[in-house]
Amino acid sequence: MKISLGELAKRFNLEQVGEANHEVKGVATLEKAQISQLSFLANAKYSSLLKTTAAGIVIVTQETSANFSGNKLIASDPYVAFAKIAALFEQQNLSFSGIHQSVIIANSANIEDGVSIGPYCIIGENSIIKKGSVLQARITIGNDCVIGADCLIKPHVVISNDCVLGARVIVHPGAVIGADGFGLARDKKGWIKVPQLGGVKIGDDCEIGANTTIDRGTLDDTILEQDVRLDNQIQIAHNVHIGEHTVMAGCSAVAGSAKIGKNCLIGGGVGILGHLQVCDNVTLQSMALVTRSIKKPGSYSSVSPIQETKDWRKSAVRIKQLDKIAKRLASLEKQK
Amino acid sequence: MKISLGELAKRFNLEQVGEANHEVKGVATLEKAQISQLSFLANAKYSSLLKTTAAGIVIVTQETSANFSGNKLIASDPYVAFAKIAALFEQQNLSFSGIHQSVIIANSANIEDGVSIGPYCIIGENSIIKKGSVLQARITIGNDCVIGADCLIKPHVVISNDCVLGARVIVHPGAVIGADGFGLARDKKGWIKVPQLGGVKIGDDCEIGANTTIDRGTLDDTILEQDVRLDNQIQIAHNVHIGEHTVMAGCSAVAGSAKIGKNCLIGGGVGILGHLQVCDNVTLQSMALVTRSIKKPGSYSSVSPIQETKDWRKSAVRIKQLDKIAKRLASLEKQK
Amino acid sequence: MKISLGELAKRFNLEQVGEANHEVKGVATLEKAQISQLSFLANAKYSSLLKTTAAGIVIVTQETSANFSGNKLIASDPYVAFAKIAALFEQQNLSFSGIHQSVIIANSANIEDGVSIGPYCIIGENSIIKKGSVLQARITIGNDCVIGADCLIKPHVVISNDCVLGARVIVHPGAVIGADGFGLARDKKGWIKVPQLGGVKIGDDCEIGANTTIDRGTLDDTILEQDVRLDNQIQIAHNVHIGEHTVMAGCSAVAGSAKIGKNCLIGGGVGILGHLQVCDNVTLQSMALVTRSIKKPGSYSSVSPIQETKDWRKSAVRIKQLDKIAKRLASLEKQK
Repeated sequence: MKISLGELAKRFNLEQVGEANHEVKGVATLEKAQISQLSFLANAKYSSLLKTTAAGIVIVTQETSANFSGNKLIASDPYVAFAKIAALFEQQNLSFSGIHQSVIIANSANIEDGVSIGPYCIIGENSIIKKGSVLQARITIGNDCVIGADCLIKPHVVISNDCVLGARVIVHPGAVIGADGFGLARDKKGWIKVPQLGGVKIGDDCEIGANTTIDRGTLDDTILEQDVRLDNQIQIAHNVHIGEHTVMAGCSAVAGSAKIGKNCLIGGGVGILGHLQVCDNVTLQSMALVTRSIKKPGSYSSVSPIQETKDWRKSAVRIKQLDKIAKRLASLEKQK
Repeated sequence: MKISLGELAKRFNLEQVGEANHEVKGVATLEKAQISQLSFLANAKYSSLLKTTAAGIVIVTQETSANFSGNKLIASDPYVAFAKIAALFEQQNLSFSGIHQSVIIANSANIEDGVSIGPYCIIGENSIIKKGSVLQARITIGNDCVIGADCLIKPHVVISNDCVLGARVIVHPGAVIGADGFGLARDKKGWIKVPQLGGVKIGDDCEIGANTTIDRGTLDDTILEQDVRLDNQIQIAHNVHIGEHTVMAGCSAVAGSAKIGKNCLIGGGVGILGHLQVCDNVTLQSMALVTRSIKKPGSYSSVSPIQETKDWRKSAVRIKQLDKIAKRLASLEKQK
Repeated sequence: MKISLGELAKRFNLEQVGEANHEVKGVATLEKAQISQLSFLANAKYSSLLKTTAAGIVIVTQETSANFSGNKLIASDPYVAFAKIAALFEQQNLSFSGIHQSVIIANSANIEDGVSIGPYCIIGENSIIKKGSVLQARITIGNDCVIGADCLIKPHVVISNDCVLGARVIVHPGAVIGADGFGLARDKKGWIKVPQLGGVKIGDDCEIGANTTIDRGTLDDTILEQDVRLDNQIQIAHNVHIGEHTVMAGCSAVAGSAKIGKNCLIGGGVGILGHLQVCDNVTLQSMALVTRSIKKPGSYSSVSPIQETKDWRKSAVRIKQLDKIAKRLASLEKQK
């Protein structure tokens, strides 16, 4: 597809400067963009690229606009504007529409109009796939599930029984939603599995990353409110509750029954222990371990800084001595 | 299904108090349970909930019994009793029985009586599926495998060649058992792959979490003894040996040839380096990194406490200076 | 298969000592090897095993050769020689050849001669599978992909649109290549997904571990140069670039747009923050977090040493006090 500067300005309600008829057919970075492509400047630090870019259209702010003499769109947040415009050029992954002949659908399932279900999908008893949703290929959906309208489920996703997804949820390949939580009771002879009888509820506009796992609740549900965004390889344990607009980067993990607030930004590899509460608007830096509830918004960290291993060995020895060091210091102070 | 107080007492060998004919048809938390549901009190701290719960039956201890005047079952460990009773109400995931017509089974494979194999499963040469096992859907089992009696394998599991599972093993969606270990030898031109020729042996009553990976051994086998319980997203490298009743929480990882004892409790995100030994009855706190063998039972930790990022920055700088700080302190002490 | 000492010496250009006709039919550790098996000694520390081994052939160095009186092969690096020889005995996983009848191939795809594609694979539009490649089973390959010659793709792998693999790449079960990167722009109402329009380029001789995820680039490609080896459960974010011969152990993660040099050795559970650069020949110890670019080759660490939890609690408290401790020490020094 091709779209002109004028059409983009109109469709996305942006101010335009330049040749209204200039058309672009794709997007690229400022360094690589050609005359037929659109680019953007999100960070004024890189303004110098505006002098050299060959992009046919650039999205800039009112402030950075002066540095670019070509065709441009003025946006209060060029990155947001770019995200919306770039979606026009996204290749549709879909090589089919309708229901592929290899799909196995339980008689009691309800597939609404305009749903596409690709090769080798399986849909369980009483499950509902709402209108406009796309299940790409080789997806297993259990019994008593609801997949909301206009969802996009990528290949090899497993959604177990009793999971409810809102509208426009995107699930990336290999994600597992609704596996049993890790519940064990210790009997004399060994471990007894605690049945996991709850489900998973995922709100509208959530996104679940590749190979991420979200366990079903033990008795109640595991809950993601609307617009929660999970990156790849994340583990969400049973009965966790995550507030709306919270974002978690790859490989982070939340233990059972933890409750995370709204608008939190959780870095990669973060761990949050079970039954804790994290309030709204908390930022957790990468690989931090949350061992107590956080009741005050702000940014939190817990990882030692990287050092050359030979220096780190010295620090590491001293960390073990820290309590003694502190006591020796106190003793010296008393001697004063 | 429905079951009465009297029948529960009899079947699980528990003392009953109240109306023997009162029936329940499900389980729930004390807060949410209705008259037709059973609940439990595992922690005396929450005894006040016994005053307000609407549960038709509650499992309590001898000690907490006095606080609840309704129908009750007395158990030495209410959580264990609950785990056993709740299993009665677990929904069967199975929407089929027998062997689905889409299953591909090698001629030399041996499928015993009473096995169910769901859509799109693949069973390799010489593999044996023992009686009562259920393979839900879309499971790939390689050559020369044994799946013990009454196993439950969930969708999208891959079990490579030469893997042996005991009886009653549960494998959750997306787990990969028997992938190649990570063995490389450095030649002049680059890395040479070291063939991984061993298998994986998993004992009776083990449970393997969603998207967890257990690599095959290089020459010998990777071994999980009986009743080992692995949560989701765990990585077990080649030639690891894990003792019976050991439990590992999500995202933990064990490097090659490490040997972990019996009855260990391993927290989420823990790392254990290769070739180390961890003795029986060790607890490892979340995200601890085990860099030396542990020869004494007990609890171990290694992660710095979380701080507000602005405070943490100060600590982080000082950690790098620790060796100098300790030396300056020693110097001051000498001057006394 | 069986192979003689003489044939092994000839084929792998190694010096032989002993009975040239002695045949072996497998490999094993020195402890377990029988007369019909070959073994090796890579570490002189274990030379004593040469006295007791029953192996029919052992690979030794010139230096350790004197300790073994049986049939032997002399190699400068016995582990490399073993890796090459053991490959002869690797069981072929393949129970089929050709294209299985259940495979779904787009009309515009190009499957070259000598390719095997197992049950339930799906190949998208315009994708090319080059000669000699094996796709084992249940693999989904999107549109516009290239799978190079002699690749081995294991079951349940997903390769999304626009991914290019070089020759001889091995991909283990459950890996996901080319899922969307985690790109979000914050609008007033919530998060806007930033389309991920780049692809993934993987060089010759790379190996991708089980359940590892490699995201597509946002505008440009995510790139692995040749001979990069990734273990299981690794997360590679969008626009990452990894130099040739770099090796990463399980559960490590690289955030968006980070650039890692050549010949790096990255331990398990390591995290590398976004947009950083790590130069060539860097070793990162397990679970280190890289929070700044590394410009000097060498070994780096960042994790506190493990302690008994009761001792660790004391250290942990003191870490938070470190800045004050350092200031108190400075104050004492001034009073001198």
